[in-house]
Amino acid sequence: MTDFDATRARFSLPDGVIYLDGNSLGPLPVGAAERVARMMTDEWGALLIRGWNDAGWMQAPARIGDRIARLIGAAPGTVTVGDTLSIRVWQALASALDLMPERRVILSDSGNFPSDLYMADGLAQLKSLGHELRVVAPEDVADAIDDTVAAVMLTEVDYRTGRIHDMAGLTARAHAVGALTVWDLAHSAGAIAVDLAGAGADFAVGCTYKYLNGGPGSPAFIYVAPHMAARARNPLQGWLGHASPFEFARDYTPAPGVAGMRIGTPPVIALAALDAALDAWEGVEMANLRARSIALSEAFIAGIEALGAGLILASPRDPLARGSQVSFRHEHSYAICRALIARGVIGDFRAPDVIRFGFAPLYVSPGDVAHAVDILGDIMATRAWDRPEFHARTAVT
Amino acid sequence: MTDFDATRARFSLPDGVIYLDGNSLGPLPVGAAERVARMMTDEWGALLIRGWNDAGWMQAPARIGDRIARLIGAAPGTVTVGDTLSIRVWQALASALDLMPERRVILSDSGNFPSDLYMADGLAQLKSLGHELRVVAPEDVADAIDDTVAAVMLTEVDYRTGRIHDMAGLTARAHAVGALTVWDLAHSAGAIAVDLAGAGADFAVGCTYKYLNGGPGSPAFIYVAPHMAARARNPLQGWLGHASPFEFARDYTPAPGVAGMRIGTPPVIALAALDAALDAWEGVEMANLRARSIALSEAFIAGIEALGAGLILASPRDPLARGSQVSFRHEHSYAICRALIARGVIGDFRAPDVIRFGFAPLYVSPGDVAHAVDILGDIMATRAWDRPEFHARTAVT
Repeated sequence: MTDFDATRARFSLPDGVIYLDGNSLGPLPVGAAERVARMMTDEWGALLIRGWNDAGWMQAPARIGDRIARLIGAAPGTVTVGDTLSIRVWQALASALDLMPERRVILSDSGNFPSDLYMADGLAQLKSLGHELRVVAPEDVADAIDDTVAAVMLTEVDYRTGRIHDMAGLTARAHAVGALTVWDLAHSAGAIAVDLAGAGADFAVGCTYKYLNGGPGSPAFIYVAPHMAARARNPLQGWLGHASPFEFARDYTPAPGVAGMRIGTPPVIALAALDAALDAWEGVEMANLRARSIALSEAFIAGIEALGAGLILASPRDPLARGSQVSFRHEHSYAICRALIARGVIGDFRAPDVIRFGFAPLYVSPGDVAHAVDILGDIMATRAWDRPEFHARTAVT
Repeated sequence: MTDFDATRARFSLPDGVIYLDGNSLGPLPVGAAERVARMMTDEWGALLIRGWNDAGWMQAPARIGDRIARLIGAAPGTVTVGDTLSIRVWQALASALDLMPERRVILSDSGNFPSDLYMADGLAQLKSLGHELRVVAPEDVADAIDDTVAAVMLTEVDYRTGRIHDMAGLTARAHAVGALTVWDLAHSAGAIAVDLAGAGADFAVGCTYKYLNGGPGSPAFIYVAPHMAARARNPLQGWLGHASPFEFARDYTPAPGVAGMRIGTPPVIALAALDAALDAWEGVEMANLRARSIALSEAFIAGIEALGAGLILASPRDPLARGSQVSFRHEHSYAICRALIARGVIGDFRAPDVIRFGFAPLYVSPGDVAHAVDILGDIMATRAWDRPEFHARTAVT
């Protein structure tokens, strides 16, 4: 059994804060700041350029990729780390389309991140071959997978509602018609028990600053399935995806497998922070994590609905159809969210009317859930949200 | 006048090391490790998600871009920071090609980084419109600019030899035939007095881990000229290049100018390190920097040639045609480089037979140059390089 009191102690949480926004930005792991400062001083400062060899910087993306692989049901050697999630989505999708030259449809859904759709739009325009990004409702995805589809590009857990797609089922359906799959795990990795290998996924990508706690803007990851390793080719062919980058050859010879998905020089300082953050996962069993997550979110939904405060559940009621977050709708969601933050309960708002609450099991406890329900109940009962300062919009929410 | 003793004191250089590899990785600035640790603790740790607003993380790419703009002759508001140089090269080139739909030639030279050429190759293939990457010798670039050329993509300072391209002259020539320019400043920014505005450059990109000392793999920058701001469109249209990213709208509406070149979530921890590093440029006049750089490299060349040790100058002899590095060729360059490193003089090797020495004026002194010449003279006179351990190749050099 995973000891969640012990994992909670691995994070530095401010006093008086109940943090239910780890689905947007995970908290600072204890010791991470010291680890990064030490890397800067002892490695960069002392070794200078020699750090690339002597401190293993060049191998960090693969080494940290393997640490993430364990959390998402992927074999060692199938994940690498670096760049942003937007770049990784684009790269995986472009690789998939390149393997399906006779098809023109990219299938996605309206539950996907707008950013993933923007990147796909841009790719389709750039290719100048008449690709179509077809966006359907989440519940219509399965029926929309036909033999015109080159790639099915989906985010497994909906960032607004927490609704989970059936990765194995949709991947099987895609494969049955000869299509490839690109899965975005931004709200899955570290939140639910992902099984990329078991689902037969072709490509997957994700960020590390949400449930993996790598810090604001920490590097993204990309997975290339073993069955794709010999075929997938990186269209963003930077020197570090080259089989022999230090030969500085004129011709590009890709490294095999996911190593070929590397692009530019790895972000060593950011990788040090992420590496430190991944220590928090030592000894954590993903099945235990999922059980804890469900217990937390079920308790929260029951508590909020018992308030009778007009907050409408926007997430699936079936916990097995839901990730590690719960969303509610309310006409005044924005102001309610601000009022909660003022009382130390940090969730977030997503336009037009959703408040999201993330339940990261590594550090959110049943006591936090009960306390958050009490505070929200008080805010709703007293209309404490109805103040001008809570209605004023800030740049980032 | 710039006080170079004062700027040298802004870096933490190990005892016994003469660091002539700042053209590959700049050294650790004093206080940078503490600044990053403090950002992680006081901002990420204490503010959590609120850091995006309250600590100005979302504006960091523009704010730091403005700090770099001053060093490269660019107006405020024309530079943003993030992603890797490979991505930025690709993005600038793709933007340029998009504006020249009737032309098919990308012109570059054999002095460019292989990585820039790989990225251009990949882009040409992806566009499926028959684009040609035409690579000529550096001295043939001017004559090769004709009205078939869509974009001239060049690295201003050659990473092997230090040879400087005439940015203003080549840009004028490109404009005369209706072509656009993409300048890679990897070995220029912080090394020479770059004048992007004066040269009329359309796009420019660069890395920050060389002469700008941002740390291993620190974020890259991109410049979009004011005269291009209304026309250039980012093909990698991630959410942060959107005019209103937090509306999460389905359609992509680009932010104007260089803000539209943002892609994914900014790398806040890495940006904190870069921001600290840029403090070292406070009060530095680029004209003074260039004069100091020339004095250092001239003294080094004179010293090495006086040794009569068979090291052949591979850089232009005219200091005005040379960046802030000097390269020599020798049959045993690799072993000589290793022997120098063993004696505390850090330069680097570039295949097949080049040793590079960088003279970053902020921290390399005339005394360092004299000392390095003495040590190299001793190594050559005693054949100290001719030991098995210096011939054995390491992964990264």
